[in-house]
Amino acid sequence: MAEDKIKTNEPQKGVEGSNLQWAPQAWAHLELVRSKSPLIQCITNFVSMDFMANTLLSAGASPAMVHSVDEIPEFTPKALGVCINMGTLTPDWLPGMKLAAEVANQCKKPWVLDPVAAGGTSFRLKACLEMMNLKPSVVRGNGSEILALFKGSVDSNSKGVDSVYCSGDAVEAAKSLAQQSGSVVAVSGAVDYITDGDRVVCVHNGVPMLQKITASGCSVTALIAAFLAVDPSHAIEATASALAIFGVASEIGMDIARGPASLRTSLIDSLYGLDEATALGRVRISCL
Amino acid sequence: MAEDKIKTNEPQKGVEGSNLQWAPQAWAHLELVRSKSPLIQCITNFVSMDFMANTLLSAGASPAMVHSVDEIPEFTPKALGVCINMGTLTPDWLPGMKLAAEVANQCKKPWVLDPVAAGGTSFRLKACLEMMNLKPSVVRGNGSEILALFKGSVDSNSKGVDSVYCSGDAVEAAKSLAQQSGSVVAVSGAVDYITDGDRVVCVHNGVPMLQKITASGCSVTALIAAFLAVDPSHAIEATASALAIFGVASEIGMDIARGPASLRTSLIDSLYGLDEATALGRVRISCL
Amino acid sequence: MAEDKIKTNEPQKGVEGSNLQWAPQAWAHLELVRSKSPLIQCITNFVSMDFMANTLLSAGASPAMVHSVDEIPEFTPKALGVCINMGTLTPDWLPGMKLAAEVANQCKKPWVLDPVAAGGTSFRLKACLEMMNLKPSVVRGNGSEILALFKGSVDSNSKGVDSVYCSGDAVEAAKSLAQQSGSVVAVSGAVDYITDGDRVVCVHNGVPMLQKITASGCSVTALIAAFLAVDPSHAIEATASALAIFGVASEIGMDIARGPASLRTSLIDSLYGLDEATALGRVRISCL
Repeated sequence: MAEDKIKTNEPQKGVEGSNLQWAPQAWAHLELVRSKSPLIQCITNFVSMDFMANTLLSAGASPAMVHSVDEIPEFTPKALGVCINMGTLTPDWLPGMKLAAEVANQCKKPWVLDPVAAGGTSFRLKACLEMMNLKPSVVRGNGSEILALFKGSVDSNSKGVDSVYCSGDAVEAAKSLAQQSGSVVAVSGAVDYITDGDRVVCVHNGVPMLQKITASGCSVTALIAAFLAVDPSHAIEATASALAIFGVASEIGMDIARGPASLRTSLIDSLYGLDEATALGRVRISCL
Repeated sequence: MAEDKIKTNEPQKGVEGSNLQWAPQAWAHLELVRSKSPLIQCITNFVSMDFMANTLLSAGASPAMVHSVDEIPEFTPKALGVCINMGTLTPDWLPGMKLAAEVANQCKKPWVLDPVAAGGTSFRLKACLEMMNLKPSVVRGNGSEILALFKGSVDSNSKGVDSVYCSGDAVEAAKSLAQQSGSVVAVSGAVDYITDGDRVVCVHNGVPMLQKITASGCSVTALIAAFLAVDPSHAIEATASALAIFGVASEIGMDIARGPASLRTSLIDSLYGLDEATALGRVRISCL
Repeated sequence: MAEDKIKTNEPQKGVEGSNLQWAPQAWAHLELVRSKSPLIQCITNFVSMDFMANTLLSAGASPAMVHSVDEIPEFTPKALGVCINMGTLTPDWLPGMKLAAEVANQCKKPWVLDPVAAGGTSFRLKACLEMMNLKPSVVRGNGSEILALFKGSVDSNSKGVDSVYCSGDAVEAAKSLAQQSGSVVAVSGAVDYITDGDRVVCVHNGVPMLQKITASGCSVTALIAAFLAVDPSHAIEATASALAIFGVASEIGMDIARGPASLRTSLIDSLYGLDEATALGRVRISCL
C-alpha cells in the first residue's frame, strides 16, 4: 500500500491523467444521476439490500429489488441499469440472475457484476464464472475476488468475503481478465483500479473504515450501475466516478463519524448532500 | 400539491373535520399500542424487515417476521394484526401470504396489505389483485400503486417502487377501489388520503425526505397494522392516526437530521420518545 | 428483577466469583478476536443479517453469511466458528442449518444456536429441538425460549419473539437443559445467566433499551460465536465475555443515544472503539 500512497501524490501526467478532467466528470455523472433518477434493478444478497437501496436513493437513483424470473422479462427492460451480486447465493437465485443479465444484454442496458467471495467455494466460483460469460459491462470486486475470477480456481487462502490481497496485487490479473472477458474490471481497495485491459484508472478516495461496514462494497457496485446507466458508453469513466464519489462521501462522513455505524449513516447523508465545490476539491482520480 | 398545501391551512369544518378531535385520537391510539404491545405478524420484503421491525418496536408493538406456511395456522391466531407486503416477491412466498390473510379473516383479526409496485409487472399485479380478493382491512400504497389496483392493469409509466403520480391524483380511484373491495384504502404522498369509499380523511404530516429512505412506506403500513390491532373497529381512524404519528416522528426527526440516513435514525428515536404535548401540537388531520 | 439488581451490588465471593478475574478475561477475549479476526459463518434470519454482520465486524471478526448446502461442506471447515439462528424459518433452510452444524462438529469447530421463538409454534419447536440434538457448543435464548427447549413443548403464552419470562425464571431450566444436552446454556435478560449445568455465571451488563432494537439478541449470539472461536475450550467464559462486552458497548452507547435507533448506532461504534480501561471498569460478571 505504501506504493499506492506515493502514487496519489505524484504529479499526474497527460490529459487523461489530469484530475482537472476527472473531478468535473465525476460531478457531472452525479448530477446526471440526480436529474435522470435512473431505475436500477438490483438482484443482491440479503445482507446488502437495505444499505444498497439507501445508497442509490441518496445518490438520486431509483432502486428496485426484483429477482423473480416471473417478472424479469417484463421488468428488466424498464430499468436503465442492473446490478447483480453473488452474496448469500443459493441455486434457486441463479436463473433470475442469468435471465436478468440476458435481458439487459438484449435491451443493450448496462449491467454490473459483484462476484462476492468468488474464490470461497467451487459452487460460488462456478456461478461467478457463468455470470462472467454473460459479459457484464463492469465487474467490481476486491483483490481476492478478481484474482479468483482470473485464475478460475478456488482460493485456498480465502477468508469468506474479506480480501486477503491488496487491490494493487490484482492489477495485472484485472487487466488480463478485462482483455479475456471484454468487461471493464474494477478492483477495490486502498486504491481502486479500473481497467479495460489497456488503460488503468486509479481512484484514491475512500477511508479504511469502509471495510468495517458490511455491504459497503456491494453498495458501491450498485452505485456504479447507476452511474453507468446515465453514461453507458463510457464504462471506465462512469465506474471511476462512482467509486470516487462514494469515496468522497465516506471521507466527509468520517469527519463526524464515531465508528463504523455512524460512518454508514454520515456517508449516506454526505452522498445525499454532496455539492459541486466539495466534489471538485476532493475527487482524486489518476491514470497509471 | 399546491392545492394540498392550501387545504391544510383552511379552517376545518364539522365535527369530523376538527383537528381538535383527530389529534387526541391519534395520541390515544399510540398510547394503546404502547400499553397493549400488540403482536404484529409481518410477511414482508427483504429490504424492509429491519426498518419495519424497529418501527414497530419503537412504537411499542411486538413484531414477528413469520412467513412459513408451516407455522401460520398456529402462529397467526396469536397475532393481533397482520401486515402483508408484496415487495421482493417470488411465487413461493404467495401461499404463505394468502394463508395468513385467510387465517386472519377467520380469526377476525385485521390485516393490512402493502401492494408494492403493484403496476410494475403483470405477475406482481395479479398477485396483488389476488390479495385484494382476500379483503384486507386496509390497503396502503402510493398513487401509482392504488391507481394500478383500481385499473387492474400494468402501468406502462411504472418506475419500479417509486410513484409517478401524486397522492391527490389517486383519490377518486381510491374511493372507487374502497367501494368495490370493502377495504379502507390509504394513498400516501405529500398529503395522505384515507377513504372507505364515502368519507375521505387527509393526513398532512410528514416530510419529503421520507421518499429518500427505503422501506419508509413499508414501515408505516406495519404501523397501521399495529394501530388497527388495538382499535379494529375503526379502520379509517386507526389508519389516519398511524400515518399522522409516523409523519410527526419524521418532522421531529428532521430537526436534527443531516440527510436521509440520520433521518431514519432520528425518526425511530422520535417515535419512541414522542410525548402527548408534541403529538397534540403536531398532528394535522382533516376531512375532505 | 429486584433480586437481580441486588446481586450485582453484593460483594462477590471466591476466585471464580471475582470480577477482578472476569473483567480482564473479557478484555483478553476481545483482544483475541481483534487480533485473530476469526471467520464466523452465520446462517441467520433475514431481519438480523445486517446488524449481525456489523456487530461482528465492529468487534474485529470476519462474518460470512453462507447458508447454501452447495457450499457448506467446502466453506464451513474454513470458519473458526458458526452461528445458527432459527428466525424467519422455512423448511428449505433446515438442511443447510443441520449440515453446517454437522460439519462444524466433524471439524471440532464451535457452533452456537439461537433458538428464536422456539416455543412459538410446533414447527419451530421441532426444528430447534432437532438442532439441539446436534449438540451446539452454546445455546443462547431469552427466558421463554430456554423454557420452551427445556419443556419440549409449545408455549401457550408465547408472544412471538419477545420473552414473557425474566431470565431468572429460566435458570433452573437452563441448568437442566445443559445437563441433558451437554451444551452450555445462556439465558439473556436484565441479568444474563450462563451455565453448564453445574456452574452458573451471571453477567450484569446491558441496558433495557436493547429490547427495543430488533436482532440485538441475534447479534450477541453471533458475538458469542466469535469469542468462542478464539477460545473454544472455555465455552462458559467466552460466552460470559461476549455478553459482557456487548452489554458494556450498549451502556457506553446509551450515553449519547436519543432512542433505540441511535443506540444501535452508538452500540456498534462503542464496540469498535472499546478500550481496555473502559472494559475493565465496566464489565460486571459474577458467579451464582
